[in-house]
Amino acid sequence: MADPLIHRNIKLTVAYDGTNYHGFQRQANTAATIQQVLEERLAKIFGSGVTVTGAARTDAGVHAYGQVINFYTAGTIPTQKIPLAAKSVLPEEIVITAAEEVDHNFHARFSAKSKIYIYRIQNTLMPDPFARKYTWHIPLVLDVESMSRAIGSIKGTHDFSAFRASGGAPVNPVRTIIDAACRREGNIVEFCFWGNGFLYHMVRNLVGTLVDVGLGRKPVSALENILATRERKLAGVTAPPQGLFLKQVLY
Amino acid sequence: MADPLIHRNIKLTVAYDGTNYHGFQRQANTAATIQQVLEERLAKIFGSGVTVTGAARTDAGVHAYGQVINFYTAGTIPTQKIPLAAKSVLPEEIVITAAEEVDHNFHARFSAKSKIYIYRIQNTLMPDPFARKYTWHIPLVLDVESMSRAIGSIKGTHDFSAFRASGGAPVNPVRTIIDAACRREGNIVEFCFWGNGFLYHMVRNLVGTLVDVGLGRKPVSALENILATRERKLAGVTAPPQGLFLKQVLY
Repeated sequence: MADPLIHRNIKLTVAYDGTNYHGFQRQANTAATIQQVLEERLAKIFGSGVTVTGAARTDAGVHAYGQVINFYTAGTIPTQKIPLAAKSVLPEEIVITAAEEVDHNFHARFSAKSKIYIYRIQNTLMPDPFARKYTWHIPLVLDVESMSRAIGSIKGTHDFSAFRASGGAPVNPVRTIIDAACRREGNIVEFCFWGNGFLYHMVRNLVGTLVDVGLGRKPVSALENILATRERKLAGVTAPPQGLFLKQVLY
Repeated sequence: MADPLIHRNIKLTVAYDGTNYHGFQRQANTAATIQQVLEERLAKIFGSGVTVTGAARTDAGVHAYGQVINFYTAGTIPTQKIPLAAKSVLPEEIVITAAEEVDHNFHARFSAKSKIYIYRIQNTLMPDPFARKYTWHIPLVLDVESMSRAIGSIKGTHDFSAFRASGGAPVNPVRTIIDAACRREGNIVEFCFWGNGFLYHMVRNLVGTLVDVGLGRKPVSALENILATRERKLAGVTAPPQGLFLKQVLY
């Protein structure tokens, strides 16, 4: 057990390019995950093993600007030196952008009040080779006006059963979306989802359905109607992982 | 020989992520190059082998927004259909952004009047994991004001011997820089070089020296002085390839 007299509780903000990782969470098999790499590499600067708790379990190929982790350590490295020290032991896809010592009760996942995810689509006939790992490429023109109206209907508290992965754990499907928006900047269409929590694949399933609206394959009322049915089979495809970024975790 | 009665001369604009390639030019060994991949894959849509001429021989790890190539073909695919057809046969790192049929005398390299290169530095303490393959990360603060003044001295016609790679071919070292500039946008410092031609490693050697100026290790007059000496050993390091992009070739 972490002893407050011996162990500090360290909170780190982590940015990572998830392209080459099998998601955040450590897995029983040998696939590289962000958590496993963090635990193995950070042990080198804290002098003993660390067990990392992450705010969100991002999937394989999903990225983060601001994942938050915490762990208890008896290591003596000054907190403000952690980001640079970590840079020398971590692969360049994983960067510690901030470090602070927090109260012993702080828990990266359970203490989180809300999270912000963004999803980017590259909406252009010929793809940009530099964006291929960080966007979903859709060559047909998306109607941002329709998608903006559709996305408004998910704000508030709803049962999101229709947008959860079929294989997800049987948790309470009710979530509150504080804000959600869609905008175009040049060839990039960006969705932003700010909510108190998200079901497994929920953002990617919402984006897949919004794209159907943007392409005129579903009406603007689709999200509202599908939410009401709670039927997963009515929603659109699961958008591919590489367009999704965990932007921020709020406490 | 290409026969104007049988063969079209096709000019293509090509964007590519050079990260995983050993430069543009086909090599005798088995390393993958952009030219080799273009020739092998484009043959599939033109019905017979194509021999590609590129405007510039970008190095291993260097990128392009607007490389230009040309080749002669008896293939009958309509010109405007080439970009999408090429998308189905090319790896996603290489994208044909424009295609046109040009005069038989057009030669991607010899007809080029000038080229524009840009070089990007990520000037921030902790690196952005998403920019690592497309920028040079320099954590110490660069003085853009000093670099802007220094870069002005290379405009015009000069003997650039001091900034050519030591192993380069013995070509005429005189080149004309039409414009050159340096600016900061947030954490990104961007250099732009517009010239009638560039010696091997010239842009990367100029950037290495400019960075010495930006860090206060060399005076603002360094570029002017080093140019005059024609001594390669006085210039700075060769900036790494991943920050360099061939932006445009002008005809």
